[in-house]
Amino acid sequence: MLRILFLGTGGSLPTRNRNPSAIMVNREGELLLFDCGEGTQQQMMRAKTGMKALTSIFVTHFHADHMLGIPGLIQTMSFLGRTEPLYIYGPQWVKEFVKIISELGYYKLHFEVEVIEMAPGDIIKRNDYSIHAIGTDHSVPSLGYALIEDQRKGRFEREKAIALGVPPGPLFSKLHSGVDVEVNGKLIRSTDVVGQVRPGRKIVYTGDTRPCQSILAVSRDADVLIHDSTLGNDQSEWAKESKHSTASEAAILAKEAGVRKLVLTHISSRYTDDASPLLREAQEVFENVIIAEDMMEMDIPLKDE
Amino acid sequence: MLRILFLGTGGSLPTRNRNPSAIMVNREGELLLFDCGEGTQQQMMRAKTGMKALTSIFVTHFHADHMLGIPGLIQTMSFLGRTEPLYIYGPQWVKEFVKIISELGYYKLHFEVEVIEMAPGDIIKRNDYSIHAIGTDHSVPSLGYALIEDQRKGRFEREKAIALGVPPGPLFSKLHSGVDVEVNGKLIRSTDVVGQVRPGRKIVYTGDTRPCQSILAVSRDADVLIHDSTLGNDQSEWAKESKHSTASEAAILAKEAGVRKLVLTHISSRYTDDASPLLREAQEVFENVIIAEDMMEMDIPLKDE
Repeated sequence: MLRILFLGTGGSLPTRNRNPSAIMVNREGELLLFDCGEGTQQQMMRAKTGMKALTSIFVTHFHADHMLGIPGLIQTMSFLGRTEPLYIYGPQWVKEFVKIISELGYYKLHFEVEVIEMAPGDIIKRNDYSIHAIGTDHSVPSLGYALIEDQRKGRFEREKAIALGVPPGPLFSKLHSGVDVEVNGKLIRSTDVVGQVRPGRKIVYTGDTRPCQSILAVSRDADVLIHDSTLGNDQSEWAKESKHSTASEAAILAKEAGVRKLVLTHISSRYTDDASPLLREAQEVFENVIIAEDMMEMDIPLKDE
Repeated sequence: MLRILFLGTGGSLPTRNRNPSAIMVNREGELLLFDCGEGTQQQMMRAKTGMKALTSIFVTHFHADHMLGIPGLIQTMSFLGRTEPLYIYGPQWVKEFVKIISELGYYKLHFEVEVIEMAPGDIIKRNDYSIHAIGTDHSVPSLGYALIEDQRKGRFEREKAIALGVPPGPLFSKLHSGVDVEVNGKLIRSTDVVGQVRPGRKIVYTGDTRPCQSILAVSRDADVLIHDSTLGNDQSEWAKESKHSTASEAAILAKEAGVRKLVLTHISSRYTDDASPLLREAQEVFENVIIAEDMMEMDIPLKDE
């Protein structure tokens, strides 16, 4: 399973129906949180995600709407008895941030918070995926993140293996994992019974940013690009000044990168009741685009299935 | 107008339907906030209270669920162009708190935050009401607050004044404000045409606390007592240990103080779907009691109307 759950899709100013930024990824049951604006813990409760499986929070930058939910969330997790460590990643200043929130009121945690400062280009390697930190272009030090799955083995052609005389059992595993085997004096090559390796899936989340080359580069063939789309064309000058992107700018980049799907987020409060102008402007450039809404879920299918 | 708006009524752990503590009072258009848990700014948006009229935040104590909404709220007010100062009151450590949140991320305010540390017994005198800080009994330094309106002048008996020969006009004001006047050589006493002074209204909010004498004393004849009622009778030992009150303890105090109405709040997450056991236990002791719910509004009528 690879599922994206949009917990907060608003801009700098939350609204009645858009929480500040928080995007959760559920990968095979492990929960990762990208940004954690105020109210994220309650959004998690409403979405019934649980909190135990949350291993890591990736902060894009230290504006309030991207991180004010962290102190409450970690105190609630401690209250609920968490003992496993939590990993918090972010751009420069993340260590100071975690130190400051630990001084905020009467505060006691029963688990460790491990803090890792990331620079553009840094990669966190996990069991079968990695998280890439991407330099972005905002008004303060900022990062985007790409979750990139390792490539998966090719499909094992079981019928063909049996036809070649391989008995079902341990030899199947050997062949599937790339080892050639001998059966009754005959060499059976792994490549004879295993298809091409299959690419893993890729999700890119920009955080707040102007459109930029580093995001374009990492977004090539991404399954989903979740891009800053704070404003519409009529506010393009203000987008430049405030270091955000317009919906069309996000769409132009998505098109150039050849992503499968573009999701517009960080929607300014001026569009809280009707974000359709942003959608229309993006659709003029790139068809496969949607506007993120709070509590929207999206499953990312395996590429060959 | 004197209206209470319950923005957050949950316990230490927020839930899907109960935000952490935040109680707003609208007095003649001025907004006062008592505690400000995470998500309060969005609750204000949902209740359409606006933010401009908010003059003061009174924090009962520095546990997360009573104050984590402050940094987001004040940054949003700045974003919306506020220039008027905001007053933040709280028990010892309030100045450190405001200093710490000012260091939390890239943060810039366009208005002044005035911080006032309160001790039990301190009184803030405003134009025609005052706020009393009350010592309470919680696990960390804590205060409750009472909003007490000044007594109002007695009713002016206009018809009687005319019958006594007083011509409508400036003499009416003099008489109403307590000054005796002479009309055609005859002394007219203020007390002849003005009824008894009328008591102002009184709201008491405990914050988190064990039942205590100081709250009992200030709650005499209160119009509304909003009392910690975290737990039920089956959890009375835990209430003692965690320095909270049960619903029946709140009711016993309310009965003894002779309050007009008791509102139970800070409801533990274990009762989030059904707080009726708490209500029943309180009603066995004191009839005029309700359970606070998020977004509940309550108008406090003038005492003689």
